[in-house]
Amino acid sequence: MSVNENVKILESISGLYLGGYHAGIKNSGTKKDIAYFFAPQATGIAGVFTKNNFFAPSVAWSRNVVKSGKAHAIIVNSGNANAGNGRRGEEDVEMTAREAAALLGIRPAEVAVASTGKIGVPMPMEKFIPGVQQMLAHWKQTDARAAAEAIMTTDTVMKLAGSEFIAGSEPCVVAGMTKGSGMIAPNMATTLTFIATDLNWSHDVLQHCLREVNEATFNMVSVDTDTSSNDMVLLLATGAKNVPVTTEHRTQFVEALFHVMKSLAVQIVQDGEGATKLIEARVSGALNVDEARRMAKSIIDSPLVKTAVCGEDPNWGRVLAAAGKVENTSFAQEKVSLSFGTELIVVDGEPLCQPREVYAAQMKGREVLIALDLNQGEHEATAWGCDLTHGYIDINTEYS
Amino acid sequence: MSVNENVKILESISGLYLGGYHAGIKNSGTKKDIAYFFAPQATGIAGVFTKNNFFAPSVAWSRNVVKSGKAHAIIVNSGNANAGNGRRGEEDVEMTAREAAALLGIRPAEVAVASTGKIGVPMPMEKFIPGVQQMLAHWKQTDARAAAEAIMTTDTVMKLAGSEFIAGSEPCVVAGMTKGSGMIAPNMATTLTFIATDLNWSHDVLQHCLREVNEATFNMVSVDTDTSSNDMVLLLATGAKNVPVTTEHRTQFVEALFHVMKSLAVQIVQDGEGATKLIEARVSGALNVDEARRMAKSIIDSPLVKTAVCGEDPNWGRVLAAAGKVENTSFAQEKVSLSFGTELIVVDGEPLCQPREVYAAQMKGREVLIALDLNQGEHEATAWGCDLTHGYIDINTEYS
Repeated sequence: MSVNENVKILESISGLYLGGYHAGIKNSGTKKDIAYFFAPQATGIAGVFTKNNFFAPSVAWSRNVVKSGKAHAIIVNSGNANAGNGRRGEEDVEMTAREAAALLGIRPAEVAVASTGKIGVPMPMEKFIPGVQQMLAHWKQTDARAAAEAIMTTDTVMKLAGSEFIAGSEPCVVAGMTKGSGMIAPNMATTLTFIATDLNWSHDVLQHCLREVNEATFNMVSVDTDTSSNDMVLLLATGAKNVPVTTEHRTQFVEALFHVMKSLAVQIVQDGEGATKLIEARVSGALNVDEARRMAKSIIDSPLVKTAVCGEDPNWGRVLAAAGKVENTSFAQEKVSLSFGTELIVVDGEPLCQPREVYAAQMKGREVLIALDLNQGEHEATAWGCDLTHGYIDINTEYS
Repeated sequence: MSVNENVKILESISGLYLGGYHAGIKNSGTKKDIAYFFAPQATGIAGVFTKNNFFAPSVAWSRNVVKSGKAHAIIVNSGNANAGNGRRGEEDVEMTAREAAALLGIRPAEVAVASTGKIGVPMPMEKFIPGVQQMLAHWKQTDARAAAEAIMTTDTVMKLAGSEFIAGSEPCVVAGMTKGSGMIAPNMATTLTFIATDLNWSHDVLQHCLREVNEATFNMVSVDTDTSSNDMVLLLATGAKNVPVTTEHRTQFVEALFHVMKSLAVQIVQDGEGATKLIEARVSGALNVDEARRMAKSIIDSPLVKTAVCGEDPNWGRVLAAAGKVENTSFAQEKVSLSFGTELIVVDGEPLCQPREVYAAQMKGREVLIALDLNQGEHEATAWGCDLTHGYIDINTEYS
C-alpha cells in the first residue's frame, strides 16, 4: 500500500488524535522534530523495550507507564536521544511528561515518552517544552503525516502501515508508524514504533499479542546488529470499538497486527543505512522455531553475506558458515539444502556445482531470497536484513 | 620485533623442519600455496578448531589427529578451503595425508591437514599432490619465510611471532605463524595458526596450555564476527629439549606462548580487511572475567563503534550501547566510567561534557584505546579489533 493509503488508515482510528511539530531540537532548519499521540478514552497500552543495559531515561519512564497498564498519550522527539545524560536526563523526561499531562488534562504517569537522536547531548528543554506547549494547544487533529515526519532521523522515507479487520461484525483498525535505519538489531524491541487500534482492550491482552507478534517481526530484522539505548514499540488501544476478547477476535487482531508490524519491520531494513537490497533468509526443516530463528538471523547479520549480496556474488559458502556458526542447533552439513531465489545450490550436503552465473542471476533484483533447509524437522522462520555497502560506511563514519 | 627476527626465532627451534612451495592451487602466477611443518621426533600436538557446524573435512581430520595426541607433520594449502565439497572433500583430505605420510615415512594419522581459500570449489588434486611430492622431496630445510608466505590469502603482510624463555636452566623457544584478515571472529579457534616449541611435552599439557592462552588471545580478536569453516590453531612440540613438566616450567611456557599468540592475534586485526586502525577495548571492574570478555568483544564487534573509530568520531554513546547490549552482566549505567586514550569521558555514570575535540584527539593514532570501568568488581579483559572502512566493503563485495 502507498504512504497515502496508510496515512488514511491510521487517521481513521476512532478516538485517536496525533500530529507533529517543529520545536527546534534538530539542528537543521524547520524540520518537524516532536510528535504526539493522544487517546482521551484509551483502555490500555502495551510496549516492548530495548534490552540494552545502557538505556535512556525515556525507556525507564515509559516501561513504568506500560507496567501500570494505562496511558492516554505518547510524546516523542527526534534529534536528541537524551541518553547518557546522567541524572539530568531523568529529570528532563519527568518534566516532559508533567508538561504534556497538564496540557492534556491527564496525569503525568499516563504519558509515555520516547526520544531518538544523538546520545550524550543534554536535551534542549528551552526548545522542547515551548514546542510541546504549542503543539498540544491544538491537539484535536489527526495528522499522521506530520507525526511520521517528526520521528524520522536518518530515515530517507516515512514508514507507515495499517490493516483493517472485522472482529465479529465490528470493522476495526490497527495501524502505526516506525522510524529507524541504523542501530537496528535482533533481541530488541527495535527502534521507535507507535501502533494504535480502536479496540477497547486492556493492557494484559494487548501486551500478550504485542510480544507474540514482535518475536516474529521486529525481532527478526537487523541492519547492523547494534541495539539502541532508546528503542521501543508502543501499542495503544483507543477504546472506540466495543469488542469482547474472544479467541476468535484475538486471532483476527493478531493477524492484522502481524501484517502491520511485518510491513513496518521490512520497511526499516529496506531503508537500512546505505542499503540497496533486501535480504530475506528462510530457514526450514528445523527441530524447533527457536533454532530456525537464530540461524535465519545469523545469516542476515553476517557482514560477509551482506557484502556478498551487495556485490551480487553468489558466495554460498558464507551463508552455510553463517548458519553453521550458531551454537546448539541441529545443523548437519551433510543434510542441508540451500537455494538462492529459485535456484538450488546444495542438495542434501552435496553442491550441484552449476556455473557461477546461474546463481549470480538470482541476486540481481532488489530482493534476494536465501532459503536453507536443514532437513531435520518441521519448523521454520524468516528474517529480513539488508546488504552492507559503502553507503553504510559513509553514513556512520561521518555522523557526529 | 621485525619479521626477520621472528623468522630467525622460528627457524631456531631444534627438530623442526618447514618450508613452502608453489603447487598452482592459487589462480595467480607463481605464488607459493602449500607449506609443511615436520618434526621427526615430535612428542605431542595440541589444537583448537572452529566451532562452526559448517566445517571443512580438514578440520574433522586434524581434530582426530590432535585427539590421538601425536603428529609429526602438518600439510597446509591456501587458495582452496576444500569446504562444502561433500564426500569428495573428505576423500581429498585423506589422500593428502596418505601421500605426505608416505613421503615422510610416517603414518597418515600423524599428518594434520589445514586448508584456506575458496569454499565450494573442488580441490585441484592434480596440482596439489605433485606439489606436495616435490616439496617434501627436500624436506630437510628450515624456510619459515616460504611457509609463512604460502599460507597467506587476503593477508597483506606475513605474520610471525616468537619468544625465547628459560625453563629451569634450559633455553627454549616457542614461535609460530598465522594467516587471516577476514572471517576472523570470537568463539573460534580462529584462522590458520601454526606454533612450534622445542619442549618434549605431550598432548595433555600442551592442550591445556593452548586452550588457556587461546581464550585470552585469539578468542579476543575479531575483524567481522564471521567465523570460518576451516579455522585451526595447532601447537607442535618437537621434543628436542628435555624439560620436565613442573608448575614453574609450565608458567614460563604459558607466558611465552601468551606473548606469541597475543602478537599473532593482534597482527591479524592490524591486517584486518580494509583496517586502518587497531581498537583495543579494556573492560575492568567486572564481577568475573567472563562478563568482562563478553563486553570487551561486543565493543570491538560493534559496526557502529568500528565506523566511529574509522571516522575518528568520539561517539562514546555507541561504546556504552555496545557494552550494555550484552546480556546477563553487572553493567549499571549509573556506575560506569569510560575513557578514550588518556581522556575520561564518563565518570560514575555522569558525562564530563568536554568539547568534542578533546575526545576526538584521542582517536587520531593508528591505535585507539577504549577503557570501560564497570566499578563492580576486580576482574578485567582486553579485546582487539579494527575499524570498519570502505576497504572492507571493497574486498568483500569483489571477492569471488
